Amino acid sequence: MTTLAGPDEGAHCCPDHDGGLLDGDEAVALADVFKALADPTRVRLLRYLADSAGGTVCACHLPDALGISQPTLSFHMRKLHDAGLVERAQRGRWAHWSVNPTAIEPVRSFLGLAPAPAAPRC
Amino acid sequence: MTTLAGPDEGAHCCPDHDGGLLDGDEAVALADVFKALADPTRVRLLRYLADSAGGTVCACHLPDALGISQPTLSFHMRKLHDAGLVERAQRGRWAHWSVNPTAIEPVRSFLGLAPAPAAPRC
Repeated sequence: MTTLAGPDEGAHCCPDHDGGLLDGDEAVALADVFKALADPTRVRLLRYLADSAGGTVCACHLPDALGISQPTLSFHMRKLHDAGLVERAQRGRWAHWSVNPTAIEPVRSFLGLAPAPAAPRC
Repeated sequence: MTTLAGPDEGAHCCPDHDGGLLDGDEAVALADVFKALADPTRVRLLRYLADSAGGTVCACHLPDALGISQPTLSFHMRKLHDAGLVERAQRGRWAHWSVNPTAIEPVRSFLGLAPAPAAPRC
Protein backbone atom coordinates (compact mmCIF):
# COMPACT_ATOMS: atom_id res chain seq x y z
CA MET A 1 0.00 0.00 0.00
CA THR A 2 1.37 3.42 -0.85
CA THR A 3 0.82 6.41 1.41
CA LEU A 4 0.60 10.12 0.81
CA ALA A 5 3.51 10.68 3.15
CA GLY A 6 6.92 11.43 1.72
CA PRO A 7 10.11 10.21 3.45
CA ASP A 8 10.11 13.08 5.94
CA GLU A 9 6.46 12.81 6.82
CA GLY A 10 6.85 9.06 7.16
CA ALA A 11 8.99 9.65 10.23
CA HIS A 12 5.90 10.99 12.04
CA CYS A 13 3.60 8.30 10.78
CA CYS A 14 2.45 4.92 12.04
CA PRO A 15 3.39 1.69 10.25
CA ASP A 16 1.40 0.93 7.14
CA HIS A 17 -2.04 -0.58 7.77
CA ASP A 18 -2.83 -3.75 5.87
CA GLY A 19 -6.08 -4.58 7.63
CA GLY A 20 -9.04 -5.77 5.63
CA LEU A 21 -11.69 -3.36 4.47
CA LEU A 22 -15.37 -3.96 5.10
CA ASP A 23 -17.10 -5.28 1.99
CA GLY A 24 -18.87 -2.52 0.03
CA ASP A 25 -22.28 -4.21 -0.03
CA GLU A 26 -22.08 -4.89 3.69
CA ALA A 27 -21.21 -1.24 4.36
CA VAL A 28 -24.19 -0.11 2.28
CA ALA A 29 -26.53 -2.49 4.13
CA LEU A 30 -25.32 -1.26 7.52
CA ALA A 31 -25.59 2.39 6.46
CA ASP A 32 -29.16 1.78 5.28
CA VAL A 33 -30.16 0.51 8.72
CA PHE A 34 -28.39 3.42 10.42
CA LYS A 35 -30.24 5.79 8.09
CA ALA A 36 -33.56 4.30 9.17
CA LEU A 37 -32.54 4.95 12.78
CA ALA A 38 -31.35 8.51 12.13
CA ASP A 39 -34.53 10.16 13.37
CA PRO A 40 -35.63 10.80 16.98
CA THR A 41 -39.23 9.71 16.35
CA ARG A 42 -38.12 6.41 14.88
CA VAL A 43 -35.70 5.89 17.77
CA ARG A 44 -38.59 6.44 20.22
CA LEU A 45 -40.92 4.18 18.24
CA LEU A 46 -38.44 1.33 18.26
CA ARG A 47 -37.81 1.69 21.99
CA TYR A 48 -41.57 1.88 22.64
CA LEU A 49 -42.20 -1.35 20.71
CA ALA A 50 -39.35 -3.09 22.51
CA ASP A 51 -40.72 -2.03 25.91
CA SER A 52 -44.24 -3.26 25.19
CA ALA A 53 -45.73 -6.34 26.78
CA GLY A 54 -45.06 -9.25 24.46
CA GLY A 55 -42.96 -7.01 22.23
CA THR A 56 -45.99 -6.08 20.12
CA VAL A 57 -48.03 -2.87 19.99
CA CYS A 58 -51.29 -2.13 18.19
CA ALA A 59 -50.89 0.78 15.78
CA CYS A 60 -53.96 2.36 17.39
CA HIS A 61 -51.90 3.27 20.48
CA LEU A 62 -48.93 4.79 18.72
CA PRO A 63 -50.10 8.26 17.59
CA ASP A 64 -51.25 9.23 21.10
CA ALA A 65 -48.25 7.61 22.76
CA LEU A 66 -45.73 9.41 20.57
CA GLY A 67 -47.72 12.63 20.13
CA ILE A 68 -47.75 12.31 16.35
CA SER A 69 -50.44 12.13 13.68
CA GLN A 70 -51.49 8.92 11.96
CA PRO A 71 -49.86 9.98 8.64
CA THR A 72 -46.61 10.80 10.46
CA LEU A 73 -46.74 7.41 12.16
CA SER A 74 -47.30 5.70 8.80
CA PHE A 75 -44.32 7.55 7.30
CA HIS A 76 -41.95 6.52 10.07
CA MET A 77 -43.20 2.93 10.34
CA ARG A 78 -42.67 2.55 6.59
CA LYS A 79 -39.04 3.66 6.98
CA LEU A 80 -38.49 1.20 9.83
CA HIS A 81 -40.28 -1.58 7.93
CA ASP A 82 -38.34 -0.96 4.70
CA ALA A 83 -35.12 -1.35 6.70
CA GLY A 84 -36.43 -4.61 8.16
CA LEU A 85 -36.31 -3.23 11.71
CA VAL A 86 -39.98 -3.91 12.48
CA GLU A 87 -42.51 -6.56 11.55
CA ARG A 88 -46.21 -6.07 10.92
CA ALA A 89 -49.07 -8.44 11.71
CA GLN A 90 -52.67 -7.63 10.84
CA ARG A 91 -55.21 -8.46 13.57
CA GLY A 92 -58.70 -7.42 12.57
CA ARG A 93 -58.70 -3.77 11.67
CA TRP A 94 -55.38 -2.92 13.24
CA ALA A 95 -51.76 -3.53 12.35
CA HIS A 96 -49.64 -4.74 15.24
CA TRP A 97 -45.96 -3.89 15.20
CA SER A 98 -42.96 -5.57 16.77
CA VAL A 99 -39.20 -5.17 16.62
CA ASN A 100 -37.31 -7.59 14.34
CA PRO A 101 -34.15 -8.52 16.25
CA THR A 102 -32.68 -10.30 13.21
CA ALA A 103 -32.27 -6.96 11.43
CA ILE A 104 -30.77 -5.30 14.46
CA GLU A 105 -28.11 -7.91 15.21
CA PRO A 106 -25.71 -6.98 12.35
CA VAL A 107 -25.61 -3.30 13.33
CA ARG A 108 -25.27 -4.17 17.00
CA SER A 109 -22.45 -6.53 16.14
CA PHE A 110 -20.80 -3.85 13.98
CA LEU A 111 -20.93 -1.42 16.89
CA GLY A 112 -19.07 -3.92 19.02
CA LEU A 113 -16.19 -2.94 16.73
CA ALA A 114 -13.97 -5.66 18.03
CA PRO A 115 -11.20 -6.38 15.55
CA ALA A 116 -12.35 -8.77 12.83
CA PRO A 117 -10.82 -12.20 13.62
CA ALA A 118 -9.32 -12.72 10.15
CA ALA A 119 -8.00 -9.19 9.69
CA PRO A 120 -4.22 -9.00 9.33
CA ARG A 121 -2.49 -6.32 11.42
CA CYS A 122 0.21 -3.87 10.48
CA MET B 1 -54.31 6.82 27.62
CA THR B 2 -56.96 7.09 24.92
CA THR B 3 -56.82 5.13 21.73
CA LEU B 4 -58.10 5.71 18.25
CA ALA B 5 -60.07 2.49 18.40
CA GLY B 6 -63.81 2.58 18.96
CA PRO B 7 -65.60 -0.16 20.92
CA ASP B 8 -65.71 -2.55 17.96
CA GLU B 9 -62.13 -1.99 16.90
CA GLY B 10 -61.05 -2.42 20.50
CA ALA B 11 -62.06 -6.06 20.30
CA HIS B 12 -59.23 -6.59 17.79
CA CYS B 13 -56.72 -4.57 19.74
CA CYS B 14 -54.13 -5.26 22.41
CA PRO B 15 -54.47 -3.87 25.96
CA ASP B 16 -53.46 -0.27 26.37
CA HIS B 17 -49.71 0.35 26.58
CA ASP B 18 -48.50 2.45 29.47
CA GLY B 19 -44.79 1.87 29.00
CA GLY B 20 -42.42 4.79 29.38
CA LEU B 21 -41.31 6.81 26.41
CA LEU B 22 -37.66 7.51 25.68
CA ASP B 23 -36.70 11.02 26.74
CA GLY B 24 -36.75 13.48 23.82
CA ASP B 25 -33.18 14.73 24.30
CA GLU B 26 -31.90 11.17 24.54
CA ALA B 27 -33.73 10.24 21.33
CA VAL B 28 -32.18 13.24 19.54
CA ALA B 29 -28.70 12.32 20.77
CA LEU B 30 -29.08 8.71 19.61
CA ALA B 31 -30.47 9.81 16.23
CA ASP B 32 -27.51 12.17 15.76
CA VAL B 33 -25.06 9.29 16.21
CA PHE B 34 -27.07 7.08 13.84
CA LYS B 35 -27.04 9.94 11.30
CA ALA B 36 -23.25 10.09 11.48
CA LEU B 37 -23.19 6.34 10.76
CA ALA B 38 -25.70 6.52 7.90
CA ASP B 39 -23.08 6.49 5.16
CA PRO B 40 -21.16 3.50 3.75
CA THR B 41 -17.83 5.36 3.66
CA ARG B 42 -18.13 6.33 7.31
CA VAL B 43 -19.11 2.78 8.22
CA ARG B 44 -15.98 1.50 6.47
CA LEU B 45 -13.78 4.18 8.06
CA LEU B 46 -14.96 3.28 11.54
CA ARG B 47 -14.41 -0.43 10.94
CA TYR B 48 -10.97 0.28 9.45
CA LEU B 49 -9.92 2.31 12.50
CA ALA B 50 -11.21 -0.37 14.86
CA ASP B 51 -9.26 -3.07 13.00
CA SER B 52 -6.00 -1.17 13.09
CA ALA B 53 -3.09 -2.14 15.32
CA GLY B 54 -3.43 -0.19 18.53
CA GLY B 55 -6.80 1.13 17.36
CA THR B 56 -5.14 4.19 15.78
CA VAL B 57 -4.52 5.02 12.12
CA CYS B 58 -2.53 7.85 10.58
CA ALA B 59 -4.68 9.97 8.27
CA CYS B 60 -2.01 9.54 5.59
CA HIS B 61 -3.11 5.92 5.04
CA LEU B 62 -6.84 6.53 4.80
CA PRO B 63 -7.40 8.00 1.31
CA ASP B 64 -5.58 5.11 -0.41
CA ALA B 65 -7.10 2.51 1.89
CA LEU B 66 -10.66 3.68 1.30
CA GLY B 67 -10.19 4.79 -2.31
CA ILE B 68 -11.29 8.34 -1.57
CA SER B 69 -9.73 11.78 -1.94
CA GLN B 70 -8.25 13.76 0.95
CA PRO B 71 -11.15 16.30 0.89
CA THR B 72 -13.68 13.45 0.96
CA LEU B 73 -11.82 11.91 3.88
CA SER B 74 -11.83 15.24 5.72
CA PHE B 75 -15.59 15.62 5.15
CA HIS B 76 -16.40 12.18 6.54
CA MET B 77 -13.95 12.37 9.46
CA ARG B 78 -15.51 15.69 10.47
CA LYS B 79 -18.96 14.06 10.56
CA LEU B 80 -17.64 11.20 12.69
CA HIS B 81 -15.72 13.59 14.94
CA ASP B 82 -18.69 15.93 15.42
CA ALA B 83 -20.74 12.93 16.58
CA GLY B 84 -17.96 12.01 19.03
CA LEU B 85 -17.39 8.67 17.32
CA VAL B 86 -13.67 9.22 16.66
CA GLU B 87 -10.83 10.97 18.42
CA ARG B 88 -7.96 12.86 16.83
CA ALA B 89 -4.38 13.13 18.02
CA GLN B 90 -1.77 15.20 16.19
CA ARG B 91 1.62 13.54 15.78
CA GLY B 92 4.00 15.69 13.81
CA ARG B 93 2.43 16.55 10.50
CA TRP B 94 -0.28 13.92 10.61
CA ALA B 95 -3.52 13.48 12.46
CA HIS B 96 -4.00 10.03 13.96
CA TRP B 97 -7.54 8.78 14.36
CA SER B 98 -9.06 6.26 16.72
CA VAL B 99 -12.56 5.08 17.58
CA ASN B 100 -14.11 6.54 20.74
CA PRO B 101 -15.92 3.63 22.42
CA THR B 102 -17.58 5.97 24.95
CA ALA B 103 -19.71 7.50 22.18
CA ILE B 104 -20.60 4.12 20.74
CA GLU B 105 -21.76 2.49 23.96
CA PRO B 106 -25.13 4.33 24.25
CA VAL B 107 -26.21 3.38 20.71
CA ARG B 108 -24.99 -0.17 21.18
CA SER B 109 -26.92 -0.38 24.43
CA PHE B 110 -30.01 1.09 22.71
CA LEU B 111 -29.79 -1.59 20.03
CA GLY B 112 -29.86 -4.24 22.73
CA LEU B 113 -33.47 -3.11 23.00
CA ALA B 114 -34.09 -5.14 26.11
CA PRO B 115 -37.08 -3.77 27.99
CA ALA B 116 -36.10 -0.85 30.24
CA PRO B 117 -36.05 -2.15 33.84
CA ALA B 118 -38.23 0.64 35.26
CA ALA B 119 -40.79 0.67 32.45
CA PRO B 120 -44.32 -0.22 33.57
CA ARG B 121 -46.12 -2.78 31.40
CA CYS B 122 -49.67 -2.82 30.12
